Amino acid sequence: MTNPPASSASSNDQAQLANPQWGGRFASGPASIMSEINASIGFDKKLWRQDIRGSLAHAAMLQKVGLLTAEEEADIQRGLAEIGREIDAGTFPFSTALEDIHMNIEARLSERIGEAGKRLHTARSRNDQVATDFRLWTRDAIDGLRGQTAALMRSLATRALEHHATPMPGFTHLQVAQPVTFGHHLLAYVEMLSRDDGRLEDARSRLNESPLGVAALAGTSFPIDREMTAKTLGFDRPTANSLDTVSDRDFALELLSALSIQAMHLSRLAEEIVNWASAPFGFVRLSDAFTTGSSIMPQKRNPDAAELVRAKIGRIAGDFIGLLTVMKGLPLAYAKDSQEDKEPVFDAVEAMTLSLAAMDGMIRDLQPNTERMREVAGMGFSTATDLADWLVRELRLPFRTAHHVTGRLVGMAEEKKIDLADLSLGEMQSVEPGINATIFDVLTVESSLASRTSFGGTAPSNVKTQAERWLTSLESAA
Amino acid sequence: MTNPPASSASSNDQAQLANPQWGGRFASGPASIMSEINASIGFDKKLWRQDIRGSLAHAAMLQKVGLLTAEEEADIQRGLAEIGREIDAGTFPFSTALEDIHMNIEARLSERIGEAGKRLHTARSRNDQVATDFRLWTRDAIDGLRGQTAALMRSLATRALEHHATPMPGFTHLQVAQPVTFGHHLLAYVEMLSRDDGRLEDARSRLNESPLGVAALAGTSFPIDREMTAKTLGFDRPTANSLDTVSDRDFALELLSALSIQAMHLSRLAEEIVNWASAPFGFVRLSDAFTTGSSIMPQKRNPDAAELVRAKIGRIAGDFIGLLTVMKGLPLAYAKDSQEDKEPVFDAVEAMTLSLAAMDGMIRDLQPNTERMREVAGMGFSTATDLADWLVRELRLPFRTAHHVTGRLVGMAEEKKIDLADLSLGEMQSVEPGINATIFDVLTVESSLASRTSFGGTAPSNVKTQAERWLTSLESAA
Amino acid sequence: MTNPPASSASSNDQAQLANPQWGGRFASGPASIMSEINASIGFDKKLWRQDIRGSLAHAAMLQKVGLLTAEEEADIQRGLAEIGREIDAGTFPFSTALEDIHMNIEARLSERIGEAGKRLHTARSRNDQVATDFRLWTRDAIDGLRGQTAALMRSLATRALEHHATPMPGFTHLQVAQPVTFGHHLLAYVEMLSRDDGRLEDARSRLNESPLGVAALAGTSFPIDREMTAKTLGFDRPTANSLDTVSDRDFALELLSALSIQAMHLSRLAEEIVNWASAPFGFVRLSDAFTTGSSIMPQKRNPDAAELVRAKIGRIAGDFIGLLTVMKGLPLAYAKDSQEDKEPVFDAVEAMTLSLAAMDGMIRDLQPNTERMREVAGMGFSTATDLADWLVRELRLPFRTAHHVTGRLVGMAEEKKIDLADLSLGEMQSVEPGINATIFDVLTVESSLASRTSFGGTAPSNVKTQAERWLTSLESAA
Amino acid sequence: MTNPPASSASSNDQAQLANPQWGGRFASGPASIMSEINASIGFDKKLWRQDIRGSLAHAAMLQKVGLLTAEEEADIQRGLAEIGREIDAGTFPFSTALEDIHMNIEARLSERIGEAGKRLHTARSRNDQVATDFRLWTRDAIDGLRGQTAALMRSLATRALEHHATPMPGFTHLQVAQPVTFGHHLLAYVEMLSRDDGRLEDARSRLNESPLGVAALAGTSFPIDREMTAKTLGFDRPTANSLDTVSDRDFALELLSALSIQAMHLSRLAEEIVNWASAPFGFVRLSDAFTTGSSIMPQKRNPDAAELVRAKIGRIAGDFIGLLTVMKGLPLAYAKDSQEDKEPVFDAVEAMTLSLAAMDGMIRDLQPNTERMREVAGMGFSTATDLADWLVRELRLPFRTAHHVTGRLVGMAEEKKIDLADLSLGEMQSVEPGINATIFDVLTVESSLASRTSFGGTAPSNVKTQAERWLTSLESAA
Repeated sequence: MTNPPASSASSNDQAQLANPQWGGRFASGPASIMSEINASIGFDKKLWRQDIRGSLAHAAMLQKVGLLTAEEEADIQRGLAEIGREIDAGTFPFSTALEDIHMNIEARLSERIGEAGKRLHTARSRNDQVATDFRLWTRDAIDGLRGQTAALMRSLATRALEHHATPMPGFTHLQVAQPVTFGHHLLAYVEMLSRDDGRLEDARSRLNESPLGVAALAGTSFPIDREMTAKTLGFDRPTANSLDTVSDRDFALELLSALSIQAMHLSRLAEEIVNWASAPFGFVRLSDAFTTGSSIMPQKRNPDAAELVRAKIGRIAGDFIGLLTVMKGLPLAYAKDSQEDKEPVFDAVEAMTLSLAAMDGMIRDLQPNTERMREVAGMGFSTATDLADWLVRELRLPFRTAHHVTGRLVGMAEEKKIDLADLSLGEMQSVEPGINATIFDVLTVESSLASRTSFGGTAPSNVKTQAERWLTSLESAA
Repeated sequence: MTNPPASSASSNDQAQLANPQWGGRFASGPASIMSEINASIGFDKKLWRQDIRGSLAHAAMLQKVGLLTAEEEADIQRGLAEIGREIDAGTFPFSTALEDIHMNIEARLSERIGEAGKRLHTARSRNDQVATDFRLWTRDAIDGLRGQTAALMRSLATRALEHHATPMPGFTHLQVAQPVTFGHHLLAYVEMLSRDDGRLEDARSRLNESPLGVAALAGTSFPIDREMTAKTLGFDRPTANSLDTVSDRDFALELLSALSIQAMHLSRLAEEIVNWASAPFGFVRLSDAFTTGSSIMPQKRNPDAAELVRAKIGRIAGDFIGLLTVMKGLPLAYAKDSQEDKEPVFDAVEAMTLSLAAMDGMIRDLQPNTERMREVAGMGFSTATDLADWLVRELRLPFRTAHHVTGRLVGMAEEKKIDLADLSLGEMQSVEPGINATIFDVLTVESSLASRTSFGGTAPSNVKTQAERWLTSLESAA
Repeated sequence: MTNPPASSASSNDQAQLANPQWGGRFASGPASIMSEINASIGFDKKLWRQDIRGSLAHAAMLQKVGLLTAEEEADIQRGLAEIGREIDAGTFPFSTALEDIHMNIEARLSERIGEAGKRLHTARSRNDQVATDFRLWTRDAIDGLRGQTAALMRSLATRALEHHATPMPGFTHLQVAQPVTFGHHLLAYVEMLSRDDGRLEDARSRLNESPLGVAALAGTSFPIDREMTAKTLGFDRPTANSLDTVSDRDFALELLSALSIQAMHLSRLAEEIVNWASAPFGFVRLSDAFTTGSSIMPQKRNPDAAELVRAKIGRIAGDFIGLLTVMKGLPLAYAKDSQEDKEPVFDAVEAMTLSLAAMDGMIRDLQPNTERMREVAGMGFSTATDLADWLVRELRLPFRTAHHVTGRLVGMAEEKKIDLADLSLGEMQSVEPGINATIFDVLTVESSLASRTSFGGTAPSNVKTQAERWLTSLESAA
Repeated sequence: MTNPPASSASSNDQAQLANPQWGGRFASGPASIMSEINASIGFDKKLWRQDIRGSLAHAAMLQKVGLLTAEEEADIQRGLAEIGREIDAGTFPFSTALEDIHMNIEARLSERIGEAGKRLHTARSRNDQVATDFRLWTRDAIDGLRGQTAALMRSLATRALEHHATPMPGFTHLQVAQPVTFGHHLLAYVEMLSRDDGRLEDARSRLNESPLGVAALAGTSFPIDREMTAKTLGFDRPTANSLDTVSDRDFALELLSALSIQAMHLSRLAEEIVNWASAPFGFVRLSDAFTTGSSIMPQKRNPDAAELVRAKIGRIAGDFIGLLTVMKGLPLAYAKDSQEDKEPVFDAVEAMTLSLAAMDGMIRDLQPNTERMREVAGMGFSTATDLADWLVRELRLPFRTAHHVTGRLVGMAEEKKIDLADLSLGEMQSVEPGINATIFDVLTVESSLASRTSFGGTAPSNVKTQAERWLTSLESAA
């Protein structure tokens, strides 16, 4: 064993003090570095409510199985209630030296109630305690996000019902393709959000097992009742393997992955809002509440809220990939690396909470310019497919042949710089003699819309039914 | 409208020809660039079985609703069967000019059966066709991965049952903490894989809706029966919104996110295998089948398979983040960007298929060195917690006080360079007079293990029960 | 040491054969799994040229320091040349059993030239050999990409010069803000690409050290001359630490990170092209070569190439994050994990090569609709800032006061539904009496453009100068 | 234009109030949502020093070109100095309504000095102002990180010099391969950090251009002097294209990508420290300062600091991918999305600052257990390669043949459970008659080490030279 150089603060700090802004904060030496990198109280204090809930459940169980007296449990209940009030009131003396929320609360409890406080940690460890707290917090977060998701779905379905027959251009490749209704377009996002909600529900169901009582990593020899604490805390059952339980952060990752996909959906809607609000499109006018102006250009309505919602996918996806990378290759059981689990989840939940609220407001307030939307819906021979379908249906041309005929007719109209509907019957018959005057019935935007009655199609009657179905099912779920 | 410069291949190609390896392939000008970036037949030919299945279902439905005659449908069935045989036999003339698998098959069909082939595309479009094919492929992939996941779970549970009482060190922070059993450690991974399987099952359930019949983006005016095609193809129902259906790639993203988390689990087990097989650990010997040797160092058993499994999380996470990034901010409905969906899914499925197979083989073949594991399990006063728990249980010391007493005893043993169990009763009583000789009963690795009988704990009796439970449930699922 | 269960292929394969598509390929048992996960010849054969170059340099050095005779070296040269011809001709018998390109070539060499072939591997190992080959390949790739980047910069600058005075709307938040010139907009991308090129140049410089001769991990006792092989292979110097050299994949990661940023730039330009080509914008018409049409809607010009370029950032960013994740936490020195380095680099280089070629073609061919761009440039009181600046400059109003005055004038014009320039002098003076008739000189799109002569500003004179500067510097670099 | 439903706070808030924890904060309606998602003052106040520096430079330039009087500039200088003192003292009245640090400072300035304050924003905009501030901050951060990187390199080189001859096992695949020296191993990380420093230097150089004066997006008509402000702020030159300048966040991305790679390096060293400190390895003892203990197991030295350093790659890579995703596909010029640039950079810089400080402390304090390292270095026939090399050098066997002979000798030793050096000469000659007694000179760990004198090899003489070279060059750079 060789003698290492002493970690003399002096030379080290000299080097770092050379750059006071960056290195200077470590002037007091290794202790301050370690404290700064190690302590989690700066962010995990957010778990205080859950920590107290968990301790109350644990104490009640310890009392029931005889590891605490009724008096001790009563002391603990009283002490934790007081601590809760202190934290709420902002008077709780948080200490970085005590590292995390668990030790802060436990130490304070012993200060306040003495002996009984020192018995609370029987048959548990910080490893199962933090896993319990964080699952509880995450479960609450999921419930909140599902409520917001449902609210946004309701707003979209409400606007969709209102606009179940409003024509707008349906794009592929951002090229005008076929007419659709604005309501149909909005309901597409209801479908996406519904899958998002399903993922949140599944994630909640999978996380809802209680870690409490697996102790440090191996279980305990105390005769504890994990079913009881699980039930008290609203978990479906206790977890089945202690090593897995203290090592696992799947519940955080699954939430982050679900939110990444949801944020992607919101980014698409946000991008559409930015496009629609742009002068060349002119499809919608955003409300003052969700735009920013400029004292010099009062007509300017910058869609800041939509842009920020569009951007949030970045941080949420980064949060997912960040935590996944942290967990890569970690041997069992607990490793300190997994302390990096909380900030990404807090960050992503905050970002999604804001995004859903802002998007809900934007959708509720959005004013469509229906004239402009109708105008663009008719551009670019957008009913050419209807013409081809007429040829198949009425003349029984094979589809590929009908395509070919339609192509020739569109080419003729394009050359004449007129719409398809403005070709004469004679011109049409010069290409395909079987055509008769009923063809003109399918060439308008409105007739095209009305005809798309296949299940899932854009016909106003379909859209009305779907919007009402969603509103009913969201109602009954609320 | 100004006149653009002609895209004269000459100057452009001059520049590129300067570096023949990189630029030279585009010497033939824009057409070759466009073909190379645009055609997907190079990878989407993997979907040929699904494409044929989808077309058969579509044709049957068209016949039922009167859009095809019985004869036409029979021709199509025969033609597609022949095409399937051609592809299987490697004699199908794939064409890049026909861009993708759908056009390749349809064009060939018309070649072979004429008129009827041209009618097949009635009331569908490539947008719903590719969505259908890819969902079918992904569903098959999920089924395959779930089967492999169950197989690995069985192998782990089998080895766990065999080693339900084999001691090994339980680590936290890779420091020896408390004894656990090898079986308990292996079952931790069964738990993880079980959640992985749950995520795959949920993803499958959410994807299992039929896109067929939403057509290009707006539905169709033909009187199609989407319930019928959905049922034929094993889908639970048709999708409800045509715009969503052609735009959505959630099913691919959800699979990729589930596989990212599963790959993380495998990376942990793989890391442990690499550590265990290293000389300083010496916990396991890997079989020849999953190691590589060296002609010069025949004793060397490089754990290549474990290292490669550990690494696969990289590409799978990259596949997820890659496709998520592609989908960010895309306006509805179909955009060509989403053609980038297939390669990441193919890549991730291939990587996970290989990883599960390799891990299964490694686990089945792994030879634990139980003596070495037992030796390390007893290092580092690993039963100190048992001592503290004895103080709480027998003397009713508060846990924090018991901790303190234990700390003094460990310090005493460390100074004497002996184990806790080698301290005399007198020495122990000098720290805490209440200690009596029964304390020695809890200081061995074996007694520590046996005592951890709380639900989820590492006691051999628990582990045996859990392993048997898993084997039974996996049996009944198979 | 316990007896493990034999890895009997039977039960395992039964399970897997249940799903023939997925599990069946492993029917032949562990050997086939290991071969499939372990062998790299499927992708690393791409390195064959580099492998031969490296071996030639190594042999020449061995001869010079006396470890090979002149005859032996001549045999090796001849043998490698023949092998090169075989590979080029497609007649080389690649073998998966030989795992990788290095062993394939070395084994073939011994087959062809006997004894001397067996001496080639003196004082080297596969670890330094693959590092050398892959650096050489990556260096070639960087050179190719830099050539393509320069070509695209030239195309952009050429079009910018052509359109140095063409007005278009300058957007912020996709809202019309101030007029700019189309040339100025295109040159913004030249700036981005120039930084991309700088990153590629720096990456090349940092990778350009020779790994050859560090052997397996510790250097060698043979009297080799690493300076000589470094020089022969065009490296600046040999690497300085053998452990670092066989472990390091920075050169791959640095290239991938540079390409991620470059792909982001291209995604922005591609998004703009998709927007510009959309009917509501109508700013550009794309050439046939880079769009796809439809037999039914001949007017449709889907910007597929732009969409695919926009999407490529997904896979390239995924490639970066994938390899970074692979490298996380790997102990020194070589680990098999790093075999996962090649496919992401090959994939990203291929994607960027295609993207640059396609973007270059699109830019060269793009036809701006200058009337439409001019029309939108004047929308939304886009010269209001010019009015405010006039107030500051001519009347010396404080800027914030000038803003306020302008706001009132814009409000007046908006109410009257006229442009700012259509307000009468009297109307203007009713808000700010100091205004005189010279104010009308700054209210047109053209005067606004002409006035922005600050360095970096959009004035046509500036843009012309910048475009010419770029063309000159790109010329001299070529 | 249809009438949208009023954004009545009532129903919306009802829905959200149902979940008070998550939705309740938005009870006051859209205004509070918008403020919360839009305002950046919560994080961009960190830029206050840079904002003041930029404003001082801008004012000085405005005065020089005649847009401010000397008195006005003096007022501004005085006002900004007072504001700086207020912020430093914590008495500055930050306002969320004023959105960001720029508006907070400018509004306060007008409050304090009146008219002159309103003139400061002449010829600039928030778009160039924030770009300037953030580049200045990032440049400072890079300088700080480079100082810390150099400090860590010094500590590593110092320990490497101390241990230039200390044997340790060189691993490949975490299997003992060949002996190396501990100093050589440490210097591998100096090489990595040196490349990291190069990337930081290049990033700094590329960012060092001044955005100030490009105004909102198009430049300005005021006769400003951008060279002057650039010089004052330490930039090399002004940026050349105004649209690019307000849109570009390359400097942030390039820093984040460089830090991602650096964090990967630190994760590898951290993983090694965790392994080395584990009982089975027993290679090092960490200092109290960088470990955490346990009151119950005082021998436990959990390597928390190393684990946290290992984990930081997660958040840093997440920060990179997050911002890259944000920037994907954004049209020019400024979009609000890019406000998401600051938090990831702040987060990554903080994480790297902590990681470098903690790693520096750990390396300085680390006590190697040289006996244990020497013991493992000799395990597993680690000098077998030396034997093979002897056969090539002394008997001129072809390398592949020498490999084969060595393999047989290792097999013989393994069977006898002895070391290679314990085989008798006769036993050796039974395999290869040419072997003589000098072979025993190459079979010890020490002789193996001493022989690896090729450039970059592990011979103690090499390592000493390299360590001294690094210390000298780091000295002269300091």
